[in-house]
Amino acid sequence: MARDSRTTKSGLLRAATEEFAAYGIAGARVDRIAAAAGYNKNLIYVHFGSKEQLFDAVYEAAVQEILEAAPFDAGDLPGYAGALFDFHYAHPHLMRLTRWHSLERPGAVLPIAAKANDAKLRALAAAQGEGKVDAGLPPRLLLALLVALTSTWSEGTPEPLGELMDATEIAARRHAVVVSVGRLTRPGTHG
Amino acid sequence: MARDSRTTKSGLLRAATEEFAAYGIAGARVDRIAAAAGYNKNLIYVHFGSKEQLFDAVYEAAVQEILEAAPFDAGDLPGYAGALFDFHYAHPHLMRLTRWHSLERPGAVLPIAAKANDAKLRALAAAQGEGKVDAGLPPRLLLALLVALTSTWSEGTPEPLGELMDATEIAARRHAVVVSVGRLTRPGTHG
Repeated sequence: MARDSRTTKSGLLRAATEEFAAYGIAGARVDRIAAAAGYNKNLIYVHFGSKEQLFDAVYEAAVQEILEAAPFDAGDLPGYAGALFDFHYAHPHLMRLTRWHSLERPGAVLPIAAKANDAKLRALAAAQGEGKVDAGLPPRLLLALLVALTSTWSEGTPEPLGELMDATEIAARRHAVVVSVGRLTRPGTHG
Repeated sequence: MARDSRTTKSGLLRAATEEFAAYGIAGARVDRIAAAAGYNKNLIYVHFGSKEQLFDAVYEAAVQEILEAAPFDAGDLPGYAGALFDFHYAHPHLMRLTRWHSLERPGAVLPIAAKANDAKLRALAAAQGEGKVDAGLPPRLLLALLVALTSTWSEGTPEPLGELMDATEIAARRHAVVVSVGRLTRPGTHG
C-alpha cells in the first residue's frame, strides 16, 4: 500500500526543515531534500509547487513553533526571556531559518508573526500603564531590544564569543540574558 | 593602456561586496560580479582563486571597516553603542555580510576579529575593576549582550518591527539602544 499524502508531506517538510536551516533558500537543493526523505523529487513539486513554496511551508511551521514555545508574559519579562533562550538553545535550526528568511526575503513578515507581535505590544503597553514595566521606552522599541537580548547567542548571529559551550557556560549565558532583561524593564530604577 | 592589477582587484572587490551582501556565499554568482565590475570572469580566478576566496577577501575588508568605524570605549559604552548603531544604519550591507558569514561558515572567526575582541574584553575588565562599569556580569557576556543591543535593528535580524523608517524612528531606535546599554552597564544601580 502506498503511503498516504499526509505522511509524504510531513516527511518532506521534516527533511526540508533541515536542508533550509543548513543552506538557506538559495543554497538548498531539492534533490537532497527528496533523497533525505526517501521520496521522488517530483513529489515536492506535486505537494508544494516549488522550492520557494516549500520554504514558505517550512518557515511558517517554524514561526508557529517559536511562538508557541515561550508564551509572552508581560508580567514576568525576565522569565519570558529565559524561556525563549531555552527554546533557541534547544532548537538552533529554527533560529537559523528566521535568519535566512530575513536575509533572503528582507522585509517580508508572516501574518501569524505580525498578529502575535501586536498582541505582545498591547500586553507590554498595559504592563507599562500599570507600572509593572518601565515606561521609559515605547513598547515596540522595548520588545525589539528584549528579543535581541534573548537571541544574543542564537545560531546565526555575528557573535564570535561562543567558544565554550559546556553546561556552565550555557547557564551563565541564560543568567546574563535574564538579568539584562530585568535591568532593561524593571520600573523606576533608572532615569 | 591596460588598467593595472590593483584597479582590477578593487573593482572586483567592490562588485563582490554588493553581490555577497545581497545573496550570500552560496547564492552569489561569479558571472554577475564580473559583469557588474566590467571585467572578464576569469580575472576573478586569477586574482582571488575561487568564489569562496573572493568572499574571504570581501569579508575581511568588511570586518576591518566595522572595527575601525566605532572605536571601543569602555569608559563610554552608551556612546560606543550609539556610534555602532550609526555605522550599521549607514552600512547595512556590511552587517548582512557578517550574517551570511555566520550562517554559511558557522563557528569561523577571523583572526582580526578575535584580536579586537580580546582588546575589548581587557578594556571592559579594567573598567569594571575601576568601578566605571557594572561588574555583575563577566566581560565576555556583557560585551555580547551589548553588541546584540546595538544590532537590534540591523539588516538581517529576525526583527519584524521595522515598518517605520523615517528620521524620527531612526532617532528613537538610536536613543533606545543608547539608553538600554546605559541601563545594562551603569554601575551600582541594580542588585
